[in-house]
Amino acid sequence: MTTAGDGKPISTIVIIIAMQTEALPLVDKFRLTEDPDSVFPNGVPWVRFHGMYKDLQVNIIWPGKDLHLGVDSVGTISASLVTYAAIQALKPDLIINAGTAGGFKAKGARVGDVYLASDVAFHDRRIPIPVFDQYGIGARQTFSPPNLLKELILKVGKLSTGDSLDMSPHDETSILANDATIKDMEGAAVAYVADLLSVPVIFIKAVTDIVDGEKPTSEEFLQNLVAVTAALGQAVSQVVDFITGKCLGQL
Amino acid sequence: MTTAGDGKPISTIVIIIAMQTEALPLVDKFRLTEDPDSVFPNGVPWVRFHGMYKDLQVNIIWPGKDLHLGVDSVGTISASLVTYAAIQALKPDLIINAGTAGGFKAKGARVGDVYLASDVAFHDRRIPIPVFDQYGIGARQTFSPPNLLKELILKVGKLSTGDSLDMSPHDETSILANDATIKDMEGAAVAYVADLLSVPVIFIKAVTDIVDGEKPTSEEFLQNLVAVTAALGQAVSQVVDFITGKCLGQL
Repeated sequence: MTTAGDGKPISTIVIIIAMQTEALPLVDKFRLTEDPDSVFPNGVPWVRFHGMYKDLQVNIIWPGKDLHLGVDSVGTISASLVTYAAIQALKPDLIINAGTAGGFKAKGARVGDVYLASDVAFHDRRIPIPVFDQYGIGARQTFSPPNLLKELILKVGKLSTGDSLDMSPHDETSILANDATIKDMEGAAVAYVADLLSVPVIFIKAVTDIVDGEKPTSEEFLQNLVAVTAALGQAVSQVVDFITGKCLGQL
Repeated sequence: MTTAGDGKPISTIVIIIAMQTEALPLVDKFRLTEDPDSVFPNGVPWVRFHGMYKDLQVNIIWPGKDLHLGVDSVGTISASLVTYAAIQALKPDLIINAGTAGGFKAKGARVGDVYLASDVAFHDRRIPIPVFDQYGIGARQTFSPPNLLKELILKVGKLSTGDSLDMSPHDETSILANDATIKDMEGAAVAYVADLLSVPVIFIKAVTDIVDGEKPTSEEFLQNLVAVTAALGQAVSQVVDFITGKCLGQL
């Protein structure tokens, strides 16, 4: 499906971002506009912002506000659906999943750190039957571009994904087993779908809260969301600037 | 998107079934054949069986075996994706999500019982921020056809969905809050996607194991899977026979 694997420069990227607050600074930065004729079916709240940035067709896909409740459509189901639909509609050479995450101070994470995820896995899909257990965890290595990592100042760590903002004791056990430094609500789902359709994904995650710290996650998350989103936006800009004009093998 | 809402008889149905063991008896019963030219994109393991049964175009969609691990692609992400892709490709008038479930004996469930779910919700998406909490739970009433319920002998109960086969204490608290009689790994996800695209869904779930009983779920599930699948197949057949020749308003 990708066209940039054979030495041609990357031409189309899709940036998947779960929250409006995370997406809008990047929409401004890349001077994107909202698609009036949606590439998505009637009824879905998914929003595509797009435009040319240097030589790249840049698409930011935000799953939009829940139609009944008006909050951002966070979590693995919406992330899976928009990843699938965006790949079908836009045939990107590369996906970037950008967003905020919780970090574990025991693994060196601090609020404001920006990570590139080397691995992803789920921590809330426990299926205690042989082989199904591995399917549930869904661990996979990500596309981790060596030159990009050399060039840009990003921390590298493993990402664990689940549909809860808090962390239950069972989640904690799984997150430890996943050896995760950061915890989000979308990454492993985006990885699963992109892997099905053979599109590489780079995961850029900025730490809004310390999971193994003193403060409740939801409070710390809301406090830091806007400030950390600025750091996230800067990191994603740098990654996009680095990508421009290169083929996948040069990243 | 549906055409059967305006008094025309239902012409196309999609039956979404997560496991091959659950799907194959119904494939035989309706004499369906596997689609050689998939309506789905290259790379995905999703399988469509289809054919005419009386006046109905019947499609059974099974998410297939995981490409890396060879086990059924169970859980909410695969269920969401195939629901979305099947609606896009086949424009069904009605979806049936059929499968096995855990049951709570405290709510009257026994192994082999077949339920029609009156309500669905998630029990493993905890987001303790106002309104986001409701989005996470994702509770919704289902399409519960009154005449079908009168005609067929099906128990009625609320369904709670999560991506784990076991039940953690946090899950249990949420399942109690959801007032659930049965627990599965797909239902609320199918409901979410079908609701986005305005297609009604009937949930038929057969109880393979008693969650609040003595035996570990995974053991009881595997022991009873084949026998309970026969009861499930019979119930789905009856539902499909009942649907034939009727419009949605007559169900």
